[in-house]
Amino acid sequence: MAARQQIVRLGIIGCGIAANELHWPALSQLRDRFDVAMVCNRTREKAVSFATRIGDAYGKNVPYVLDYLELLATPNIDAVSIMLPVERNLEVCAAAAAAGKHMMLEKPIAKDMAEAREVLGLEAKHPGLVMMVAENFRYRQVFAELADSLRKDAIGTPYFVEWKSWQLIDPASNPYAQTPWRINHRYEGGFVTDAGVHYVAALRDMLGDLSTVGACSACVNPAIGRMDSLAWLFRTTGKDAIPPLSGILTIGFSVHGSASSSLTILGSRGSAVVENATLRIYADDADNPVSVADYPDGGGYVEEYVDFHQAITTGQKPTSTLDEASKDLDAILHAIEMGQHSNPTLR
Amino acid sequence: MAARQQIVRLGIIGCGIAANELHWPALSQLRDRFDVAMVCNRTREKAVSFATRIGDAYGKNVPYVLDYLELLATPNIDAVSIMLPVERNLEVCAAAAAAGKHMMLEKPIAKDMAEAREVLGLEAKHPGLVMMVAENFRYRQVFAELADSLRKDAIGTPYFVEWKSWQLIDPASNPYAQTPWRINHRYEGGFVTDAGVHYVAALRDMLGDLSTVGACSACVNPAIGRMDSLAWLFRTTGKDAIPPLSGILTIGFSVHGSASSSLTILGSRGSAVVENATLRIYADDADNPVSVADYPDGGGYVEEYVDFHQAITTGQKPTSTLDEASKDLDAILHAIEMGQHSNPTLR
Repeated sequence: MAARQQIVRLGIIGCGIAANELHWPALSQLRDRFDVAMVCNRTREKAVSFATRIGDAYGKNVPYVLDYLELLATPNIDAVSIMLPVERNLEVCAAAAAAGKHMMLEKPIAKDMAEAREVLGLEAKHPGLVMMVAENFRYRQVFAELADSLRKDAIGTPYFVEWKSWQLIDPASNPYAQTPWRINHRYEGGFVTDAGVHYVAALRDMLGDLSTVGACSACVNPAIGRMDSLAWLFRTTGKDAIPPLSGILTIGFSVHGSASSSLTILGSRGSAVVENATLRIYADDADNPVSVADYPDGGGYVEEYVDFHQAITTGQKPTSTLDEASKDLDAILHAIEMGQHSNPTLR
Repeated sequence: MAARQQIVRLGIIGCGIAANELHWPALSQLRDRFDVAMVCNRTREKAVSFATRIGDAYGKNVPYVLDYLELLATPNIDAVSIMLPVERNLEVCAAAAAAGKHMMLEKPIAKDMAEAREVLGLEAKHPGLVMMVAENFRYRQVFAELADSLRKDAIGTPYFVEWKSWQLIDPASNPYAQTPWRINHRYEGGFVTDAGVHYVAALRDMLGDLSTVGACSACVNPAIGRMDSLAWLFRTTGKDAIPPLSGILTIGFSVHGSASSSLTILGSRGSAVVENATLRIYADDADNPVSVADYPDGGGYVEEYVDFHQAITTGQKPTSTLDEASKDLDAILHAIEMGQHSNPTLR
């Protein structure tokens, strides 16, 4: 008989897109681990709507507040999820730490490295608290399986990685493009950082740290930010049995008609390609992979909450530490900084 | 009635793969412009075989010699095609210039920049001679049409170019991989230079000069050279109405199962993709290009000989000048040099 899980009483700070689209769908599957005890949003309508949605699912009343300090002052809350515009992470983390709450905060860890270091400082000052970043790519099974394939010599010695993320964001219809803090860049890179930090996390987990060889960026559509396109050439340090390799990450949010999203790793005897949750291993025949496997992990959101719960209840370190998240941000910000030396604004 | 063309009497020095596979098929269509008057190869079998092949097509005897100086000393030869291992270009160009022969030499112009400058010096010293490089990509219609589309605003403002050339060279079956001077690198980069100089020529013609932002190279299969893989991040200077843009060229000759060959240019309102001789223009729908056009130019070999003929008979400068070829080589060698700082040898 499985031991009964300790239920963590969770407060949610920020009832926007991330809370509604990403976190609640995961939390709603984890009622044996989490009870959403209170939500907070400074816009009453969003707070009410989210509290009602959760309450309906739970079949009970879920209270809401408009001031996150009020939520943090509530004694019967063990932990909080902070899903606010990133430039507010430091301020709210500091308050949550002072209130003695465990916390998961949305990526990237902070708006810049100075603030990321302050968040790390909070963790050092409060060693009894679990502090982690909601970096779901750290929990996606397809990347773990890819790394495992590389270590098991599925493609020979890997030497090159290409990650291509080309899409078109329509500011009129994309909800993320309607959040002013993204467009007006409360942190460097805007959308490019938003997405880039995910790719960096997956790359670093699989292949080791990244050092920038060169980068170029552009602003194609100013309506979605001061930067919407990045080409980044890097070297990895290598990790476990995987040697250092060269790589290119291209991120484009204003790509018309050539949308593409794939991660390809070339090896001395084969290649590995990830598209969505599918991993294909090729030998010589591009039309017929030697293996195809699907790892529909739902994006890793459930797994990150399971990890959060485990860290809280066992004291074990979570996978998505602040330290890793801080290194992810540092890498993408460095690429962006290098890229801006050649940053033309179009139109 | 068209004026009768002046027939240029041509000597061919080097009866290897390039002469047989690329040049003769073009020359055989241009009997109104060229008469192959003599061929030369130091291996008698190759000389005999090539002379016989041409003689059979012409229905007459085509003489061969084993020593290129003998060919150059023949008075009734106006011009020569030099299709030798590249490290011999300077020596044979110097002799051809001294003999007063117009000349076309196979790309790259020389094995290094010091020798390229010496070849340029020969041209300066012999202004009456046509000296050009057989850079067929300068004559491929699909690239001219692509540049024209960009200037005509077919994709809005272009901002990024990606050229991907990933293939697998099998040393056991690929004839180019059996030429010792390529494998043992009589010039830096071997196959990567061989192919790369073509891409550089097309990119420079369309988009202006290239400056290296960063590069990484690798030797995956030492059986085809000290380098077989290059990832190159660059900026273009812009040209005509096309602004400066960022770009990536990836060349891989040991790619198993992910072969790919395409040139993509992203613009603020669309994208343009060249595969083989087909140009596709896209707006927002990747499945349905707004235009598809084929420019089956046969690789540009016929056009380069037509240009050679015209330069000889009119005194007009050819398109594929030594100067351009020298800049092509300089750009790829610079990328290769930068790439070698991170050049791991696998296996």
